[in-house]
Amino acid sequence: MNIPNATNPRIVIIGGGFAGIALAKELKDKNVQVVLLDKHNYHTFQPLLYQVATGGLEAGSIAYPLRKIIQEYKDFYFRLTSVAEIDTKKQKIITEIGDLHYDYLVIATGSKTNYFGNKEIERNSMAMKTIPQSLNIRSLILENFEQAVLIKDSSEKSSLINFVLVGGGPTGVELAGALAEMKKAILQKDYPDLDIKKMQINLIQSGDRILNTMSEESSKEAEDFLKNLGVKIWKNVRVTNYDGRTITTNSDLTFDTATVIWTAGVKGALVSGLDAASLVENVKRIRVNQYNQVKGYDTIFAVGDVAMMELDNYPEGHPMMAQPALQQGKLLGENIIKLIHKQNMVPFEYHDKGSMATIGRNKAVVDLPHYHFSGVFAWFVWMFVHLVSLIGFKNKAVVFLNWIYNYIRFDREGRLIIRPYKKKSFVTFTSDEV
Amino acid sequence: MNIPNATNPRIVIIGGGFAGIALAKELKDKNVQVVLLDKHNYHTFQPLLYQVATGGLEAGSIAYPLRKIIQEYKDFYFRLTSVAEIDTKKQKIITEIGDLHYDYLVIATGSKTNYFGNKEIERNSMAMKTIPQSLNIRSLILENFEQAVLIKDSSEKSSLINFVLVGGGPTGVELAGALAEMKKAILQKDYPDLDIKKMQINLIQSGDRILNTMSEESSKEAEDFLKNLGVKIWKNVRVTNYDGRTITTNSDLTFDTATVIWTAGVKGALVSGLDAASLVENVKRIRVNQYNQVKGYDTIFAVGDVAMMELDNYPEGHPMMAQPALQQGKLLGENIIKLIHKQNMVPFEYHDKGSMATIGRNKAVVDLPHYHFSGVFAWFVWMFVHLVSLIGFKNKAVVFLNWIYNYIRFDREGRLIIRPYKKKSFVTFTSDEV
Repeated sequence: MNIPNATNPRIVIIGGGFAGIALAKELKDKNVQVVLLDKHNYHTFQPLLYQVATGGLEAGSIAYPLRKIIQEYKDFYFRLTSVAEIDTKKQKIITEIGDLHYDYLVIATGSKTNYFGNKEIERNSMAMKTIPQSLNIRSLILENFEQAVLIKDSSEKSSLINFVLVGGGPTGVELAGALAEMKKAILQKDYPDLDIKKMQINLIQSGDRILNTMSEESSKEAEDFLKNLGVKIWKNVRVTNYDGRTITTNSDLTFDTATVIWTAGVKGALVSGLDAASLVENVKRIRVNQYNQVKGYDTIFAVGDVAMMELDNYPEGHPMMAQPALQQGKLLGENIIKLIHKQNMVPFEYHDKGSMATIGRNKAVVDLPHYHFSGVFAWFVWMFVHLVSLIGFKNKAVVFLNWIYNYIRFDREGRLIIRPYKKKSFVTFTSDEV
Repeated sequence: MNIPNATNPRIVIIGGGFAGIALAKELKDKNVQVVLLDKHNYHTFQPLLYQVATGGLEAGSIAYPLRKIIQEYKDFYFRLTSVAEIDTKKQKIITEIGDLHYDYLVIATGSKTNYFGNKEIERNSMAMKTIPQSLNIRSLILENFEQAVLIKDSSEKSSLINFVLVGGGPTGVELAGALAEMKKAILQKDYPDLDIKKMQINLIQSGDRILNTMSEESSKEAEDFLKNLGVKIWKNVRVTNYDGRTITTNSDLTFDTATVIWTAGVKGALVSGLDAASLVENVKRIRVNQYNQVKGYDTIFAVGDVAMMELDNYPEGHPMMAQPALQQGKLLGENIIKLIHKQNMVPFEYHDKGSMATIGRNKAVVDLPHYHFSGVFAWFVWMFVHLVSLIGFKNKAVVFLNWIYNYIRFDREGRLIIRPYKKKSFVTFTSDEV
């Protein structure tokens, strides 16, 4: 892979997400060679993907060039590639751009959408884990509306403006809220020749409350917020299939829709080559000890979503979110250096800073470890936390400016179909209609 | 096409560029039905495409939703489609989403890249007339660098970082300057394992000066600016072919390069169906009289780049730029209303406000009708004029903020490969190289 020979120990990091970046920053100036690999040349701020999908922000505002992050770090290298396999015996990874030996390997590959084995749902529904996927959702929403104005058949038309979000976690909730605001503030004006009242936003949750990783108050309040925005919430409903036209569920309930956005589950983005004993097969995560060391290996680590550290207080590992990833990445940076210097590593302890979700303008819910609040102040806190967490001054400033503008004007000007999702022309008329 | 029957005369506008939008705005509240068609759902501010291509601005900052422009206009309709043909006998247009009758038709389809019939150049080189094309150029530049770090063969490597721009008009000049600044300020830092000094930017011009539609001073100064930035300018050189590896010219000169950006010519983006007598075949433009009426038709008009109004002082029509398009669009709006009311139309007269080009930070040239200036002040004027011309407050603010940031930090953070251009993996190693 054309990396200069290392005189220092070589640490290979697969993935430039929250965990990978936190780790890389920690390894700066530590007399190690670091090779960071990612299949994108940018870091993605995933918590704001839903705003890209709904036209509130441009993709570039939540992405940051990975090369820029490590630009001034000595003996750091970035390579744009996906990793095919790890050869643990020979201590090397096999990628599409060549092989690479590692002294220490860190798997920070994150997570991807879990369809729980249903190929038909996977084929027909939209996921929202990456920027290209979010841009596809944006295009699809707008293309649906462009198509709906053309069509006379009413069932076809209503299926085009019926949006079904499967999964009542933060992503589903935030997206549902954003769609409801688009409906009210934008689509109504943009499509005067459509009866926008008929646009439906359905949120399906298999459990008995949405935001089920948060407090009961948060669930309740988020539900009220969404209902006030016109979102229909279906609880205790499990989607069994979606053939591209109709959603079937475990009850009599069905939904005719052209758009299903699937946020009902995630699984680890595994890299092959690890021993089966180190994997938790059903969620595709990697078992690690308290030092994020992969079970059975001394020099291979996993951090973030893909890592599963089974502890008494976290029997299923830490939540697959930014905070554990950031904290694990940072500590692992210190621990690898300790390991190199034959010092004792420090076990990871997760500091739960709480969680939050935004439903719409002036509407958010926040759970701190011992305190819950919601409404306008929660919404400001949500915005503040997300702004300061974004990488880069310019991104912060542009996002802030967009938010102010969108707030004052009730607008989202990113409703641009720059990369069409539907490849073919919408409909072909045979009649000589004028 | 599912447009409500018109009680008012129906004006169909094909194209939402400068001319189409200026026209649409003029037709507001005039008791006409207006149907605006475009194959994109946004207006593109073409003069800043080169900044999208070089990562200085996000695509969304120079695009504006067409539906938003006409949102509050009564009896205005937008449809996302390309137009296949005009049936002038039946007064209707034929599109992929159905046919549509018109009372008045305005062709504002703009221009596209002219390869002068050379299919091989067309296949192998990049154009920069649309946002997707600009994003492709951005991706290709970055992919070339990512690939260059991997490759050991030196001729291959230098071909990847050798950029050839064909055409010394404003687009070629501005792009060359932006690339030169990327080289100095960004690529050098982003790719420490490449010898960036070997990156070449070649600008080929068939005539004996660049910016040949501007004053001789402007040409001269732009040339000096570019040379100081390290751009190599080749004048009186005509490109004869590009096979994807090597450019051949009318002299012994050849260039081995992976990237050719072709800005050497434009032609009208014609719609078929008009009588051959009304067309200027070699440049694909439509002959119009002083009222922008297409020769031979009473109710069909053409405005902007695609229109060619042959006048004594403009024997080859007006320059294919924003200003004539804006002015023609606006006047045509007034004239169509006059025509409907059986009043006399006003002949078009072009007010040349001058022209300008920017070469880089603090470097621009401006030709006013009777005055020429250049340097820092010209650069500020260039920025001001482009900022106020952008549609929408938010776009103005975001572009302004980006420019300040890029200026202070010598940076362009839009170096993101969000839509890869090269579809395949760069190289495949067979060796067991580490």
